[in-house]
Amino acid sequence: MSQEHTNPAGNPITGKSAFSEDVMVRSSRPTLEPAASALATFLLTRVLESIGNPAIQFVLWNGTAVPRDADAKSGRILIHDMGALLRLVAKPDLNFGEMYASRRIDVHGDLAELLERVYRALPREDGVTDKRMRLGAVLDAQRRSLRQARHNIRHHYDFGNDFYKLWLDREMIYTCAYFPTPAMDLESAQLAKMQHICRKLRLKPGEKVIEAGCGWGAMALHMARHHDVSVQAYNISREQIAFARERARREGFGDQVEFIEDDYRNARGKFDAFVSVGMLEHVGPERYEELGRVIDGVLAEHGRGLIHSIGRDYPQALDAWTERHIFPAACPPSLSQMMNIFEPCGFSVLDVENLRLHYARTLEHWLQRFEAAAPMVETMFTPAVARTWRLYLAGSLAAFRAGNMQLFQVLFARSRDNRIPWTRDSP
Amino acid sequence: MSQEHTNPAGNPITGKSAFSEDVMVRSSRPTLEPAASALATFLLTRVLESIGNPAIQFVLWNGTAVPRDADAKSGRILIHDMGALLRLVAKPDLNFGEMYASRRIDVHGDLAELLERVYRALPREDGVTDKRMRLGAVLDAQRRSLRQARHNIRHHYDFGNDFYKLWLDREMIYTCAYFPTPAMDLESAQLAKMQHICRKLRLKPGEKVIEAGCGWGAMALHMARHHDVSVQAYNISREQIAFARERARREGFGDQVEFIEDDYRNARGKFDAFVSVGMLEHVGPERYEELGRVIDGVLAEHGRGLIHSIGRDYPQALDAWTERHIFPAACPPSLSQMMNIFEPCGFSVLDVENLRLHYARTLEHWLQRFEAAAPMVETMFTPAVARTWRLYLAGSLAAFRAGNMQLFQVLFARSRDNRIPWTRDSP
Repeated sequence: MSQEHTNPAGNPITGKSAFSEDVMVRSSRPTLEPAASALATFLLTRVLESIGNPAIQFVLWNGTAVPRDADAKSGRILIHDMGALLRLVAKPDLNFGEMYASRRIDVHGDLAELLERVYRALPREDGVTDKRMRLGAVLDAQRRSLRQARHNIRHHYDFGNDFYKLWLDREMIYTCAYFPTPAMDLESAQLAKMQHICRKLRLKPGEKVIEAGCGWGAMALHMARHHDVSVQAYNISREQIAFARERARREGFGDQVEFIEDDYRNARGKFDAFVSVGMLEHVGPERYEELGRVIDGVLAEHGRGLIHSIGRDYPQALDAWTERHIFPAACPPSLSQMMNIFEPCGFSVLDVENLRLHYARTLEHWLQRFEAAAPMVETMFTPAVARTWRLYLAGSLAAFRAGNMQLFQVLFARSRDNRIPWTRDSP
Repeated sequence: MSQEHTNPAGNPITGKSAFSEDVMVRSSRPTLEPAASALATFLLTRVLESIGNPAIQFVLWNGTAVPRDADAKSGRILIHDMGALLRLVAKPDLNFGEMYASRRIDVHGDLAELLERVYRALPREDGVTDKRMRLGAVLDAQRRSLRQARHNIRHHYDFGNDFYKLWLDREMIYTCAYFPTPAMDLESAQLAKMQHICRKLRLKPGEKVIEAGCGWGAMALHMARHHDVSVQAYNISREQIAFARERARREGFGDQVEFIEDDYRNARGKFDAFVSVGMLEHVGPERYEELGRVIDGVLAEHGRGLIHSIGRDYPQALDAWTERHIFPAACPPSLSQMMNIFEPCGFSVLDVENLRLHYARTLEHWLQRFEAAAPMVETMFTPAVARTWRLYLAGSLAAFRAGNMQLFQVLFARSRDNRIPWTRDSP
């Protein structure tokens, strides 16, 4: 965004610099010549075509609507100036979000509903994506080196604990909850999620557990408290580790749970269980085999493992806006991609559960809390930050509702191990 | 086997034709010169090394043991003549079974236990296998053409209903059962398996179901009887279809269940559920995307699908003996391979369950029944047929116990469908 704002080029059609204001003043509505209006209509029609013609309508600052006639129930995207229009047309996937953040584009009505329409209509993008993913592989590998991984993670998770406290549950769990019934409250559903995972892992008192990517520490503390295991929990976000250590000390688990500010790839020792909730998204498919080898190195002969991760129904790159503004170098994998963790390393997949609708429900809670806290976010940061996060949460909600994102829990053990549970219901 | 039996070459060391008797007479024990004995020891030591040095011992007709000292608990493989020895050394994976069938090689003690030792020691064979699989891909594609598929399937399943009746459960279900507790009897466990699958598919009265590969019809009739659905069930085995039709008529489901002697790839119409139990093993990974397109073509918007198949923890070719004598052109896939059914076609995997130990238990039942019926099999066919099937059942049991084979149930729906079950326990 900043890079575009320093672009000295003025608007080629209006001659007006499009970059003079960070927030568009909506009352200023320059007129648009008929030829320019026709061109805008043409370009926006192409944009709609390229995204599968969802039931949405663009409305320009002068009242021009594309398509002209739309269902009253159609979502409406308001474009407030020529610069925003041109950027949207040039790179819709990246610039919609940037223009929305600076309020030069607005959405009329429910943001998540509009985005869900868009996601549902989006054509499959294997071809483009495969190419993008191949071209990006070398760069990605570099971006996920140990040092760069720290940078990427801090970009997102060191945003400030106070920020996340505003809208997460009281245990600060920033991953999909599990709702035994959809009406359950978020606090209970996050507890149910941790119980759900521990049940799958069949933790026994006295066992040693390693957690890769522990967030603010809720899962590690839950396992120690309710299953009497000792935990080594890795995280490269300094703010999260500090928070988790302080909580462990305060709650009397300082000896039983060790929070380690380091990359999981540096883990040593032998553990009875490996668990990772919401970290795989940051690992990158080109490093899955390496992850598998790390797990192979630390897991005991009869060890069990569970990886909980956002996923996809087929390999796809993250959209450009999320990749730039929210999660640098992140990539939710498809199951075929995830299998590169397990298949080269002698692991056997025992159980996969897709909790997509549970992530949609989790996001409904987060978005509701976020909206309530938005004035606070605007004060702590800027209105643009608040709008960026609203768009990110609403967009994620839309993606899970539309089936563009999945949530996989994958339980595994070693191929030769016959001490695996007899059935899912076995104690 | 027949091709080797017509080989006119005599035994190069003893000068005695190794092919004169179909069954080796164990009392004839030609002596072995010291040099020949040393060579035999050398060659068998290499064989043991190549299969990862399992705790087994080869014992030759003259008493030579390789390795010389072995644990008393080691499995023992008795080699009765020089021809059998040379063939074993030349191609252990193919010729062990052929020599075992003709009783020129015997196993002392529990066959399945010995084979489990072998499977547990076997080194991973990605490299060899990948190469073999690439080289074989074109041939495989040809072998799984519509016409050849019929031939392959008939090789195995048209062996005769009377044969399978001897050792399968009373409903003639030739796929992995589901044992809520390990002590359950086979009949109940096969019923429990059908209930388990129907629960996952959440069949509703009046729905239409398509079954690809229906065996002797038990699953199709179960769904019709207990869930009041109509079923179109495909199978290219003539004997099985005849049996299934007769059973449907006799039990009054002739109108509700249509047994179709045809390839599932010729299916037409729209169905609420797709189910396939134990057919994918015969499809071949190079045709998974085609299978996905067939399912895409016949599944309704809110349709659900379940594929139940033997699988692997990583891509591997079937061993040469099983491929030649039991299942021509079969290939149990790894999960990454299976994903080629779903990922290119807009499906979302909802649930994967690995029932490996249940297939081991199922095979324990089958093997026990088969042993009891072996004299009958020898009478109906030949002793070699009985020994081939014993080896196949014991080898499969060993492979599931050792983790060389898996059993995957994969539940899926369309990516955009939000009518998927909320949790696994949802009604």
